[in-house]
Amino acid sequence: MKSNKGQNLYTKAKKIIPGGTHLLSKRPELFLPNLWPSYYSKAKDCNIWDLDGHKYTDMSHMGVGTNSLGYSNSKIDDKVHLAIKKGNMSTLNCPEEVALAEKLIELHDWADMVRFARTGGEANSISIRIARAATGRDKIAICGYHGWHDWYLSANLNNGDNLEDHLIPGLNPLGVPKGLKNTVFPFQYNNIDELKKIIRENPDLAAVKMEVVRSVEPEKGYLEEVRRLCTENNIVLIFDECTSGFRETFGGVHKKYQVFPDLCMFGKALGNGYAVTAVIGKKEIMEHAQNTFISSTFWTERIGPTAGLATLKEMEKIKSWEIITNRGKAIKDNWKKLASTNNINIEITGMDALATFSIKSDNWLKYKTYITQIMLEKGFLAANVIYSSTKHSENIIEKYSENLAEVFEKISEFEKDIDSVDNHLISDVCHSGFKRLN
Amino acid sequence: MKSNKGQNLYTKAKKIIPGGTHLLSKRPELFLPNLWPSYYSKAKDCNIWDLDGHKYTDMSHMGVGTNSLGYSNSKIDDKVHLAIKKGNMSTLNCPEEVALAEKLIELHDWADMVRFARTGGEANSISIRIARAATGRDKIAICGYHGWHDWYLSANLNNGDNLEDHLIPGLNPLGVPKGLKNTVFPFQYNNIDELKKIIRENPDLAAVKMEVVRSVEPEKGYLEEVRRLCTENNIVLIFDECTSGFRETFGGVHKKYQVFPDLCMFGKALGNGYAVTAVIGKKEIMEHAQNTFISSTFWTERIGPTAGLATLKEMEKIKSWEIITNRGKAIKDNWKKLASTNNINIEITGMDALATFSIKSDNWLKYKTYITQIMLEKGFLAANVIYSSTKHSENIIEKYSENLAEVFEKISEFEKDIDSVDNHLISDVCHSGFKRLN
Repeated sequence: MKSNKGQNLYTKAKKIIPGGTHLLSKRPELFLPNLWPSYYSKAKDCNIWDLDGHKYTDMSHMGVGTNSLGYSNSKIDDKVHLAIKKGNMSTLNCPEEVALAEKLIELHDWADMVRFARTGGEANSISIRIARAATGRDKIAICGYHGWHDWYLSANLNNGDNLEDHLIPGLNPLGVPKGLKNTVFPFQYNNIDELKKIIRENPDLAAVKMEVVRSVEPEKGYLEEVRRLCTENNIVLIFDECTSGFRETFGGVHKKYQVFPDLCMFGKALGNGYAVTAVIGKKEIMEHAQNTFISSTFWTERIGPTAGLATLKEMEKIKSWEIITNRGKAIKDNWKKLASTNNINIEITGMDALATFSIKSDNWLKYKTYITQIMLEKGFLAANVIYSSTKHSENIIEKYSENLAEVFEKISEFEKDIDSVDNHLISDVCHSGFKRLN
Repeated sequence: MKSNKGQNLYTKAKKIIPGGTHLLSKRPELFLPNLWPSYYSKAKDCNIWDLDGHKYTDMSHMGVGTNSLGYSNSKIDDKVHLAIKKGNMSTLNCPEEVALAEKLIELHDWADMVRFARTGGEANSISIRIARAATGRDKIAICGYHGWHDWYLSANLNNGDNLEDHLIPGLNPLGVPKGLKNTVFPFQYNNIDELKKIIRENPDLAAVKMEVVRSVEPEKGYLEEVRRLCTENNIVLIFDECTSGFRETFGGVHKKYQVFPDLCMFGKALGNGYAVTAVIGKKEIMEHAQNTFISSTFWTERIGPTAGLATLKEMEKIKSWEIITNRGKAIKDNWKKLASTNNINIEITGMDALATFSIKSDNWLKYKTYITQIMLEKGFLAANVIYSSTKHSENIIEKYSENLAEVFEKISEFEKDIDSVDNHLISDVCHSGFKRLN
């Protein structure tokens, strides 16, 4: 059998790291159980080398959306190297955090103040704390995925799997204090009546927290109506743009829709792979951060804001959001063509720069596994989601599509019962969400 | 007036960052209001250069305890530079996280599994989530400072300022959901009866979470009795060693006392200034992380575990915990001598590597401000707390003590009413804890 140092290391990891990885989306079982390379030695542009030295083109989630300017981008890395040479940490603060705060405010006219953190979960919790402090109320309406913290998972204390439709199925609120029951209420995107009902039944709602857009576009007037309802009821409107930010505009995608929140969060792409996240907001809300306690040692290290500044500079220079949107469009077009040619019933969703497809078939998860298996053999990390980067050249997309064409042809045969996917899978079927590993 | 680019920048920061800084302990008002240099351009060994190019010797908290091997330590930085060159992030996981997990387990016989985060607040919340998931109970008894998260601040929902005696006074739980009231119960260090009472009154206690040692040594048998009570009542014992870890042993200071928890957290010194924190624990408890959802994108970046590995390697090589303890002892000895010579009523506390003094006087806060003011003029960042590093040579400590001698002589005059500190302060008196900034 072929050497797979990554799988060997993952076997060891599962024994000493509960769940194996620190991010669910990087769990090998979500791609190709027992065969996924799992660990990398090197990453550059949109290439990744595994522990055996095999090189792959990343046509998947590019660090779960962190690297929209590609891996190891020298424009950012050079600044980080310099920051390290001058000292990543000290008893005094780093000036870069003020400069990055200024820049984010400059990009968002409606915002006046900024707080930084290092992870998206933290930024989510900071925004919730501020909204609750500002309103003196505890309840939150949510739409989308907002991290692992107690406040969010508590939605699943209410009754069963409330978060089922919000990106990750199967999230268990075990260990979340039961006193948080009935503090968080999920609502469906584009369903204004559901949100209205939540607001009507909960006059003590502190915030509406939502992803501006993820799978589908907002219906006409939807975001405007959410904004109006929040204003009318003195509810803090929080846009979670950890994922959508900098994918379609230079800043939040809400700039495209011209609907403005009270607080907004950024993460993922903000530091092009370096840990930095941000909460921006209106002064009258953000100032309430001072009436509570929000403080952490490692929010003051220098790499985060340095990377953020350098990333924004490079994004602005090359208009990266236009590039990645165009590349995403091309990817989607190719999927559509391939599906059409092969009579495959495909559904394509997501922002262009977060392109996603699924095949409408009972065998979908098997097909997804098969796609990953074959594409891996062909030198691609690929499933059904592509977070495009500026390094995904037209040439790379072309090559990817050519290779995928053969896979789609095969799936067409499976769908027509000419052959069965079961004859070809050399791995267990990939997981579809969160589950306990044995 | 002398140029103070740092204060100018801080004035701007306060307008766009609520509270001015991202860590309370880095707030200039805690040192020297309106005069503290506030921001740095460069840091090396135990030297810091401010934005005006002035060089200071850091005889204060060395990045709030992060840099026990000194700033910009090339042994760690070289490895981080290399990690960046090979790619800080990718769709696959970094192998360094498995190696660091292995190392931490190797250093702690009783522990089997590890989870990493990037901030101390996160590591605290992870350990609480795991303890609650493992026991199915919600309540926590705490002793010490454990971060800004809801679960911890909720202690102040019970009645007023429960956390008053746990490091930072004035923490306001505004924005913490009221459903968390009566879930967290603080107890005083070395007061076993208080803990017994909490356990007796709350049979549904999930965890006892405490700093193993901070200001004072544990009384004989105290930690052993805490351990016994937890075992007897099936309560998860969590040691928060974010601050104490690697200061006195190669690992948790609990190794010195030979009392072992079920979960233990590290942060601060673990990455010598780079953001990485860890929760280690027994398999039967840690495995419950899999029954809940604990996941974050930036926990998977490569710098954190790379820095952690390099830091541990260097610590082991030079036995840094012995060096910083010895340096801390020397600092404490000098304080004692200076106080004695000048008839100053001094109280010296803290682990040796976290040496702290205060002067028993109604004017203490003014004296503290005065010390900082004069020492700053003399080229030192210094108040009343020194987190010693391996770069604090005997020569540096000698020089610091010589300069401090003059300050103590002056304070002696103030105490004897020969002169008044008020005649000398050119700054407002420093803050003693958390308060809202205007």
